[in-house]
Amino acid sequence: MLSDDRWFTEYCEEAGSAHSFRIEAKLHEEQTGYQKIEVYETTHFGRVMVIDGFIMLSARDNFIYHEMLAHPILYTHEAPKRVAVVGGGDCGTLNEVLKHPEVEQVTLIDIDERVVRLSEIHFPELCGRNDDPRAKFCFTDGCKWMREAPQDSIDVIIVDSTDPIGPGEILFSGEFYSACQRALAGNGLLVQQSESPLLHMDILRGMYREMKGAGFSHLKSLFFPLSVYPSGWWSATMARKGAPIEGFREEAAGNRPFQTRYYNSDIHRGAFCAPEFFYQALSDIEPVT
Amino acid sequence: MLSDDRWFTEYCEEAGSAHSFRIEAKLHEEQTGYQKIEVYETTHFGRVMVIDGFIMLSARDNFIYHEMLAHPILYTHEAPKRVAVVGGGDCGTLNEVLKHPEVEQVTLIDIDERVVRLSEIHFPELCGRNDDPRAKFCFTDGCKWMREAPQDSIDVIIVDSTDPIGPGEILFSGEFYSACQRALAGNGLLVQQSESPLLHMDILRGMYREMKGAGFSHLKSLFFPLSVYPSGWWSATMARKGAPIEGFREEAAGNRPFQTRYYNSDIHRGAFCAPEFFYQALSDIEPVT
Repeated sequence: MLSDDRWFTEYCEEAGSAHSFRIEAKLHEEQTGYQKIEVYETTHFGRVMVIDGFIMLSARDNFIYHEMLAHPILYTHEAPKRVAVVGGGDCGTLNEVLKHPEVEQVTLIDIDERVVRLSEIHFPELCGRNDDPRAKFCFTDGCKWMREAPQDSIDVIIVDSTDPIGPGEILFSGEFYSACQRALAGNGLLVQQSESPLLHMDILRGMYREMKGAGFSHLKSLFFPLSVYPSGWWSATMARKGAPIEGFREEAAGNRPFQTRYYNSDIHRGAFCAPEFFYQALSDIEPVT
Repeated sequence: MLSDDRWFTEYCEEAGSAHSFRIEAKLHEEQTGYQKIEVYETTHFGRVMVIDGFIMLSARDNFIYHEMLAHPILYTHEAPKRVAVVGGGDCGTLNEVLKHPEVEQVTLIDIDERVVRLSEIHFPELCGRNDDPRAKFCFTDGCKWMREAPQDSIDVIIVDSTDPIGPGEILFSGEFYSACQRALAGNGLLVQQSESPLLHMDILRGMYREMKGAGFSHLKSLFFPLSVYPSGWWSATMARKGAPIEGFREEAAGNRPFQTRYYNSDIHRGAFCAPEFFYQALSDIEPVT
């Protein structure tokens, strides 16, 4: 029943699970030079973008993901002026970053320009700030861009990547993290989506190892719900250059000059609270102190 | 493909979504006097119990649900000695409650004895404390039991119910909450599973209204992931008789004399952090102070 054309189903091979959304129409399908992009209109989750069979976002709940990728790191950094978003072609993370008046420039680096162009058509609510003079778009390989970025030139890097297969794989490598480490200014911060804590601790362990190997000695993961991703529970992992990740600009977060639907100061604090099994699974890489 | 006999699929009509688990075998199916119970062996989530088409628990992630229903309320109450678990026939919540040495008696009240008997067979890891002399089982209607409980006789009530349809519906009613209010001793606490914050704010609003109508003036919801339930994100709502819900026995929680896989003191604090949309959706019932 769910394989008929009234449903879009995403399979999660490694979990023996699948999740499905009832669709009203397929709005678009194209094979770009990098990946296959589909856009569906669903009955209850609004528009959904799918890349290579994996749901990237839905109109209904992308606010959680985009707010949690943008605001915790920007309110943790003391003065985030120069930001790079690697991946994130749907522009939702960029849109949240641009809500921060203290940000002076944001470069979005996505290998596939078509993701941005299709998002402008099908998710205009995420692209409303694309013309902000602080925003710059580079359609190139994120790892190459980062290697070529001037040393100490970025305050905050947000890696809004696909899963570590296909074009996104390089963004989970030590080579990429070393390039980030070099490009970040002192006390600079990196955050990257880091998959499901329930399903993908092997990926998280790999990421912790690679980030530490690249010189990021201080790591912390944050957790949030996301119904369109496998298991409905997702994480992002934050790394700081040269200093522990402690506290955040709480007063600024509480007085933020824009509306949010998920993020607030309480959520900021709560998101960094890790479950017991998470500490245990990382205990040989990142001992709890 | 997902409708064939290699998958169990749960439909969520109100969200136009479905989630599926690959199965190795159907271990049991029976229609009791109250509901249809099925047990499956899945490829990646271990055993799964299904009631009336809705997944109740999986061997893989029930620890999150059961720990979050039991430990936050027991460490919030100053001295939880007398506990009632309404529903919860799989015995997972009971098992967590019995890990607390300060608890002197726990009564599990489930309308359907067959849930307990099948759990003993298919989820023995949840039933290992069923013979604890502090545990008592009553197979009767939870609302009736609560109405007949002596006044001021219970410290903690945990409502581990099914959804508010079928036999579980009465457990979301003002009549039931009034009975709980009467049965609870001073400063007594109630917690109830309260569905998905993303999908079921209407149910949460109804619950807040009914609980307040029954005299519980102080309410707080807590949030946790749960991959086998719709949207993968779930909540429980806590109500206190006569006093605000503030703080918890943090030192005791930090030094708990048992292992957990999800719960810890950080998680306790973090779980009560509510997203912006949640406050907004309840602002006419429970203004943020």
